[in-house]
Amino acid sequence: MELIPSSRIRRSPYFDSTIAAGCTAWTVYNKMLMPLSYGDLKAEYDRLINAVAMWDVAGERQVQIQGADAFACAQYLSSRDLSKMVEGQGYYVAMCDHDGRILNDPVLLKLSGNRYWFSIADNDMLLWAKAAAAEKGFDVAVSEPDVSPLAIQGPKAEDLVAELFGDHVRSLRYFWFTETSLDDIPIVVCRSGWSKQGGFELFLQDGTRGVELWNRVAAAGEKYGIGPGAPNHVERIESGLLSYGGDNTPDSNPYETLMGRYVTPHIEADFIGKTALAKVAAAGPERQMVGLFIHDETADAWPLPQRTPIWQGDRQVGTLSAVVWSHRLEKKIGMGQVLSTVIGTGEAVEVEGPDGRSSATITTLPFI
Amino acid sequence: MELIPSSRIRRSPYFDSTIAAGCTAWTVYNKMLMPLSYGDLKAEYDRLINAVAMWDVAGERQVQIQGADAFACAQYLSSRDLSKMVEGQGYYVAMCDHDGRILNDPVLLKLSGNRYWFSIADNDMLLWAKAAAAEKGFDVAVSEPDVSPLAIQGPKAEDLVAELFGDHVRSLRYFWFTETSLDDIPIVVCRSGWSKQGGFELFLQDGTRGVELWNRVAAAGEKYGIGPGAPNHVERIESGLLSYGGDNTPDSNPYETLMGRYVTPHIEADFIGKTALAKVAAAGPERQMVGLFIHDETADAWPLPQRTPIWQGDRQVGTLSAVVWSHRLEKKIGMGQVLSTVIGTGEAVEVEGPDGRSSATITTLPFI
Repeated sequence: MELIPSSRIRRSPYFDSTIAAGCTAWTVYNKMLMPLSYGDLKAEYDRLINAVAMWDVAGERQVQIQGADAFACAQYLSSRDLSKMVEGQGYYVAMCDHDGRILNDPVLLKLSGNRYWFSIADNDMLLWAKAAAAEKGFDVAVSEPDVSPLAIQGPKAEDLVAELFGDHVRSLRYFWFTETSLDDIPIVVCRSGWSKQGGFELFLQDGTRGVELWNRVAAAGEKYGIGPGAPNHVERIESGLLSYGGDNTPDSNPYETLMGRYVTPHIEADFIGKTALAKVAAAGPERQMVGLFIHDETADAWPLPQRTPIWQGDRQVGTLSAVVWSHRLEKKIGMGQVLSTVIGTGEAVEVEGPDGRSSATITTLPFI
Repeated sequence: MELIPSSRIRRSPYFDSTIAAGCTAWTVYNKMLMPLSYGDLKAEYDRLINAVAMWDVAGERQVQIQGADAFACAQYLSSRDLSKMVEGQGYYVAMCDHDGRILNDPVLLKLSGNRYWFSIADNDMLLWAKAAAAEKGFDVAVSEPDVSPLAIQGPKAEDLVAELFGDHVRSLRYFWFTETSLDDIPIVVCRSGWSKQGGFELFLQDGTRGVELWNRVAAAGEKYGIGPGAPNHVERIESGLLSYGGDNTPDSNPYETLMGRYVTPHIEADFIGKTALAKVAAAGPERQMVGLFIHDETADAWPLPQRTPIWQGDRQVGTLSAVVWSHRLEKKIGMGQVLSTVIGTGEAVEVEGPDGRSSATITTLPFI
């Protein structure tokens, strides 16, 4: 579909580089253009699985909470116990509304005792956080800082990032980060990224230097076989990674989006949605995200521009959000949200595809 | 640019109709695909100016405030005095943050004493309203109802809408509305729309019946010369209509976005941003939206995918957000935000276009 650029839709600091690298397909993510492909999805997948890929994920914006009450405010906005979190650490957290419905699944970075970043998926949590913080009376400033992640993903990402920033990055644990710089470009290096192939995100802290950072990474990565890419639709299904807002219906709670183990309604500290989430924890979630083996041997992804029904006979038992051909499993696989009462590994269902129903079998996530 | 559809980006109830009508260009508005053109912008402009056009503006979502405290909550979220608003009336209001910065410029509809709709521009005010209402403790439910506007705009819109709904719609004043139906499709008919050519918005209240409504309007409109269109970039500049988020910088207050006369910081009732807005009202806004005559005689619009600087010599005095060729004025015109100290009709500036600087002259809005 032809998208007309406009000043309502922002450009990433890496925009010129992604155009020069031959970006062919886009999405809009947090009101920013985000590359989706450079014209050869299979080559992009192979680079991610076997070598290293660089992704403009600047659309993953930061909501910064800064001030004397930053800890209390970050806790109030997160449905996960933050009391043991230390500086330099990141947590995968669910942000929920007062009814316990999930609004976002950011990685929360603790930069200091009075400064946190929610590194958000596609939903304007800046508005949510600003309203909640101001009304609650927290002594904090809530803002969107000039921070734009560049993801370096794949098995050779660590060698590349160590070459650029030093061997100390090798000792970073998952979601831990360090504030550093490259050619005086201020960067937070975090072991994170929306794949399970290992890697880092470089949180560029100066939007005027995106092209410079891109070029530096591309040059250093050459010997590792680096190339441009984007969050990979096939790999993320194989790995069972949630696409917030795509996979889940808007009324989902975090127990229904693979995040149950990160939700702590039993803690003493108050947070938004706590009472509602305690009830879900006690009763069990009505739906869960599952994997699906689709009995269709054609080796392509299904276009699924909207979630479609999952059936058992005439009864809708869930929603299907993605179907791809797994290059590694050599099978057609999908993700969906299914009623807990129906879920059982090997359970047979039917899914609604572009050409009507196909039979499918429920399985656990991740696939690989 | 090639946009890849995804379940994160919603489809309007009119989607299939817009595809059938030959939509060629899209934007993403409130996370929904919104048509921008059907391939002939000049014909679409002419229909809007001389006849009647129908626009899928379902991306203009509603934030519904319902409950015992609906009035207090709607007032708290609006920087305009709502005390004299009556049922069936709409108000153009600025929603601001606690620092008086504008977050959205919706039309607020009062459906009843305990039910309001904010008919929003492109920004997720549902999150803002939900957080503020819950934290403030208002007895309201905040939701996004199943409501999707179809705009009927142009000098023949009234005849068409009267033919469909009855002559009583002719007596509706600007922004007033009536709850009615068409072939049992529940619809709110409002005299509104993002043009100055006159017309209505049909707020469809059943998303399963979009195609039916579209077809009914298209058939009845045939004799008036109706055709598909979209919010028109040329007409809206000629008419001086704000594109929230496109024309203004994120730190603007409503006095800087043509909304000063709708802001009432002197009222007794409390609303978000009131103290900050009282200060701006006393001191006067630093910047204002202006029109610009661009001294460039080529008859095309400038691609301006981002706001660009307005200069006086080496000093940046504002930001330019749109430049089009006015078919009616036969002049190149633009809109921008300029420092109040610089503004004066006839004042000379330079604007940054795709091929460098052009000289321009400041004027008042609207142009026509």
